[in-house]
Amino acid sequence: MFEGPVQDLIDELGRLPGVGPKSAQRIAFHLLAADPADVSRLQDALQKVKQGVLFCDLCGNVSASERCRYCADARRDPTIVCVVEEPKDVLAVERTREFKGRYHVLGGALDPLAGVGPDGLRIRELLARLGGTGPASDEADISEVIIATDPNTEGEATATYLVRLLRDFPGLSVTRLASGLPMGGDLEFADELTLGRALSGRRAL
Amino acid sequence: MFEGPVQDLIDELGRLPGVGPKSAQRIAFHLLAADPADVSRLQDALQKVKQGVLFCDLCGNVSASERCRYCADARRDPTIVCVVEEPKDVLAVERTREFKGRYHVLGGALDPLAGVGPDGLRIRELLARLGGTGPASDEADISEVIIATDPNTEGEATATYLVRLLRDFPGLSVTRLASGLPMGGDLEFADELTLGRALSGRRAL
Repeated sequence: MFEGPVQDLIDELGRLPGVGPKSAQRIAFHLLAADPADVSRLQDALQKVKQGVLFCDLCGNVSASERCRYCADARRDPTIVCVVEEPKDVLAVERTREFKGRYHVLGGALDPLAGVGPDGLRIRELLARLGGTGPASDEADISEVIIATDPNTEGEATATYLVRLLRDFPGLSVTRLASGLPMGGDLEFADELTLGRALSGRRAL
Repeated sequence: MFEGPVQDLIDELGRLPGVGPKSAQRIAFHLLAADPADVSRLQDALQKVKQGVLFCDLCGNVSASERCRYCADARRDPTIVCVVEEPKDVLAVERTREFKGRYHVLGGALDPLAGVGPDGLRIRELLARLGGTGPASDEADISEVIIATDPNTEGEATATYLVRLLRDFPGLSVTRLASGLPMGGDLEFADELTLGRALSGRRAL
């Protein structure tokens, strides 16, 4: 244990996710020796995030203004909506450069053990968009919802729940990301669940 | 790339040592969802460290007051001084519970390539303590200096430099931490430098 403000900073840094005691110590001594202007920039960034970050009123992604850059982009197709759990999943889909529609960020996945039920996710907002009562006027004709929640227990449960809700919308196509072998992988080392999914999802060539 | 304040925070966090882009993103979203009181505590800790941390005027360790807890402790032997590079090395020596003397924190090691020469370290302060002109009145009779710089190139160079300076103090015993095989290790896997040091430093049983 160090004394005084240095130990306080180490303690606070150590509370952050993925920062162990050694990293916290290293970061604290880095900041101690750093240019005060660098520390000020970090403080300002914290202050701005604490004061509140804007979320897109349509998709729920983090945003610099009322509407995020994807929802505000007139070149994107407003009739296809990709449903993801978190803002970072939007980035992951964007990196593929394969998707040119809009997003809907749920803010997590159903997780009863952690107390996250349907009301804790942005599902009501999704239904409003599909029903034509969402905040955007050009979304009356959404034709496809791609459910891109994570391929784990919570994500699969959320997908199943959404599919059941979205069946009620006539003419709406609901799809799910394919599960299967990761590209560049090795069949021998695939876990049985993934290999089973790859088998049941096999495609005609 | 996210938009607005979230990305600014991710950028600032990513500049910290040992925090990669993924960790920075994870920490930023953690802080975004965290209790504002938690964020405030981190901000306060940063502010206090930026405003300046006290260093012990005797040993140079980080301190809550003018004199650190080790130098202020009357039960510790003022005649033995352990010279280390950084405050975290003081903690490492303390954890052994083997040392009951005082410390001297150099603030680094000689590293000409990085522009750290003798004037960049607290060597003058060490000489003052040994010469009886340091800030503590009870240090006139320092009998031993243990050089506990790191066992790497810079630490060894610093130790060699200090030994040459400290030879001039009559009656002063200058020692260096033993190098050798780490306890619990395996002779087979020891690197040749370590094994060589262990051989040349062998002791009679």
